[in-house]
This record gives sequence, C-alpha cells and structure tokens, in this order.
Amino acid sequence: MVGDSIGTKLVSLGHKVIMGSRTATNEKAISWTNRNGALATNGTFADAAAYSEIIFNCTSGQASLEALQLAGRENLQGKILVDVANPLDFSKGMPPSLSVCNTDSLGEVIQRQFTDVKVVKALNTLGCQLMVNPGLLKDPGNIFICGNDVGAKAEVESLLRTFGWEKIIDLGDITAARGTEQVLPIWVRLMGKLGTPMFNFSIVS
Amino acid sequence: MVGDSIGTKLVSLGHKVIMGSRTATNEKAISWTNRNGALATNGTFADAAAYSEIIFNCTSGQASLEALQLAGRENLQGKILVDVANPLDFSKGMPPSLSVCNTDSLGEVIQRQFTDVKVVKALNTLGCQLMVNPGLLKDPGNIFICGNDVGAKAEVESLLRTFGWEKIIDLGDITAARGTEQVLPIWVRLMGKLGTPMFNFSIVS
Repeated sequence: MVGDSIGTKLVSLGHKVIMGSRTATNEKAISWTNRNGALATNGTFADAAAYSEIIFNCTSGQASLEALQLAGRENLQGKILVDVANPLDFSKGMPPSLSVCNTDSLGEVIQRQFTDVKVVKALNTLGCQLMVNPGLLKDPGNIFICGNDVGAKAEVESLLRTFGWEKIIDLGDITAARGTEQVLPIWVRLMGKLGTPMFNFSIVS
Repeated sequence: MVGDSIGTKLVSLGHKVIMGSRTATNEKAISWTNRNGALATNGTFADAAAYSEIIFNCTSGQASLEALQLAGRENLQGKILVDVANPLDFSKGMPPSLSVCNTDSLGEVIQRQFTDVKVVKALNTLGCQLMVNPGLLKDPGNIFICGNDVGAKAEVESLLRTFGWEKIIDLGDITAARGTEQVLPIWVRLMGKLGTPMFNFSIVS
C-alpha cells in the first residue's frame, strides 16, 4: 500500500519509477504498472535498486532487511534510501509492538548494515494516503526527517516538498529514528480512537 | 519542577495541596510551601498520600515506585493517582532511553503494583510550564489521558479543564501509556531542535 501510494505520486510528478518486489511477476506490482502509464515499470528488488537514483523502502519493517539484501548491496551503494518502514511486530496480536526500539531503531539497523547507503528516515509517522497528499488535511501538520548525510536529507526534503509538504522538521542524525518510530504506538491508539488514519501530528508553539 | 508547577496551579485554583517528599524537611518543599500561602503545606510522601483525595505522581520515573511504596499502600488505596512521570533513563547519557517501553509502560507497572489505585496517565507529553498553562502557546494542542477507571478519568479530565485544557484525548485503558511514554524520545529530539520545551503536539485532521 505504501509503495503503491508513493510510486503513484512519483509517477504523477514525472519521475520514472520501478516497483520492486520479491519476484518480477508480483501481481500487485504488475497491476500498479498497468495503472500508471509509461513512466511505471516493475521488477525484482534488485532491478528496482539497480536502475534507481533514490530508493524508497516501503516494505514491512519485519521484511526490510531481507528485501534490502535481495536488492543487493552493489545496487544500493552510494544511493539515497528513504526509509518509510516501521518495525511493527503483529506476532503478539494487537496493538503491535516494535521489534526494535528505545536504544536502537530500524533506521539505524539499516544504516549499520548498509554503511555505503545514505539512509533518510521519513514519512513513517502518518498513513500512506496522507504521505503523498498532505492537502487532504485542513491542517497538514508536520513530517520529520533524519539521517546522517546532510546532502541526502536536502534532496529528500526537496522531493517531499513536491509532494506538497511544507512543514518538514529535520531531527538530526539517523538515531532520531528512535523518536519517529516510537511515535507509532500512540499513532495506532489514535487511529483506534479517531476511527480513521486521516490525521497527523502538528508541532504547535 | 513538575510537582512545583502542578502544586502551584492547584493552589491557585483553590485546592489544598500537600507537597510530599522523602522527608518532611525537604528544602524545596518547604520553599514551595512558603511561596504558596495558606492552602499549601508539605510533608512526607505518606503524609501527602494520606491526606489527599487525588495524588499526582510527579517524581522521576526511576524513583516513582519507591516513592509510591513510601507513600504507603494503605494511604493510596482507592484513590486516583495521576501519573505524570516518564521512565527516562539518563544513566547511559543523552539522549535518555526508557527503562520500560514497547510491551509495557511505567503507568502499567504502577497499576499492576498498586491494584487498588486508580491510575490515570496524563500530562506526561509536555513540559511542566505548559502542563498548567496551555495558554502560553498560541495553539495549545492536545493532551492525552488513559487509565482503566472511567470515573477516575472523568474526574481528572474535569480537573485538567480547570488548568485550561480543552482538547483532551482519552486513549483508552492504561496500556495506552505505552503510546504516551514513547512520545518522549521524539519530544527530547524536538526540544533539542527547537531549543525550547515550549511546544506541544496537536492532532490535526
């Protein structure tokens, strides 16, 4: 769902997008390609990584490392990886817990395992419809980015502005992913309370 | 600091307040009493618990259980305990980690250890100046409460409204404290980024 939303948005903005999956024949990916015209194509995780300048990790947090290994270290090297994933663990039922948190985060785990990749954590604190359509909310609120590479963050921030985001807060290095990933537990409770994922956090002062 | 802020606010609203400390001769508590007129007094944790209808836990999260044990099970029994504390662990340096999180929370630990007490987690997602003066922000934003006892939550919500809070979100039972306590990591990062604790979260839709 997250990959579909972000891929569709990127195509609508004129970018060429390769939707990566475990196999090149993934039905959802083919359906996405068919719905999105000439700029859209799909392939394996390795295809997507090899032919892209910027890679979005839109996999489930539990599957992210395996997906990135399948993408291939050599295909990811030196590139920007926008990590949208959350380490939500549904194995113990609802509400989900986090498989990594507190003194570590999925963003950091990915950065440690792929030291040559420029990991930028972003967009993981809100639902996928809002990620690419902040205008759906009367007050869109804030999004947060963090990562170790200043240039990569600037590039991602520019791209997110083309999504419609205006209030983007750079929280610092990738360890700040502990902060944005640990927002998920209250996000899940709020979704239950409000009965919709169509809300966001705004920092007011 | 948190106890001072909340105690001062409660006195200003006409409530009789006993500031509890480890000893009845705590200098900061005596100073607080001297600054706050006839409705203010201080004593041991046990004194504060025994003579109060509603107890605010404004201790450091690492000290909360010991403070509540010193307050005395018999003095707390059947009462509302507003748990403002966060389980921040500064022992490994900055930024702090959480000594309990993810599949548990300080609010739940307290509720399990004091089963006869009506624990209401509240006010732990913002700085103490704002807790009692939401009007200091142009847009005060939201506060969150949670707890197992519906009547206790209603009473705490009424009290918080007298503090000036209008947008109070009840997140459900005490397990939702996992959500509000895990907000602290991003709160700490935001404070570093913004250079001030004078901000809050607003849920926008």
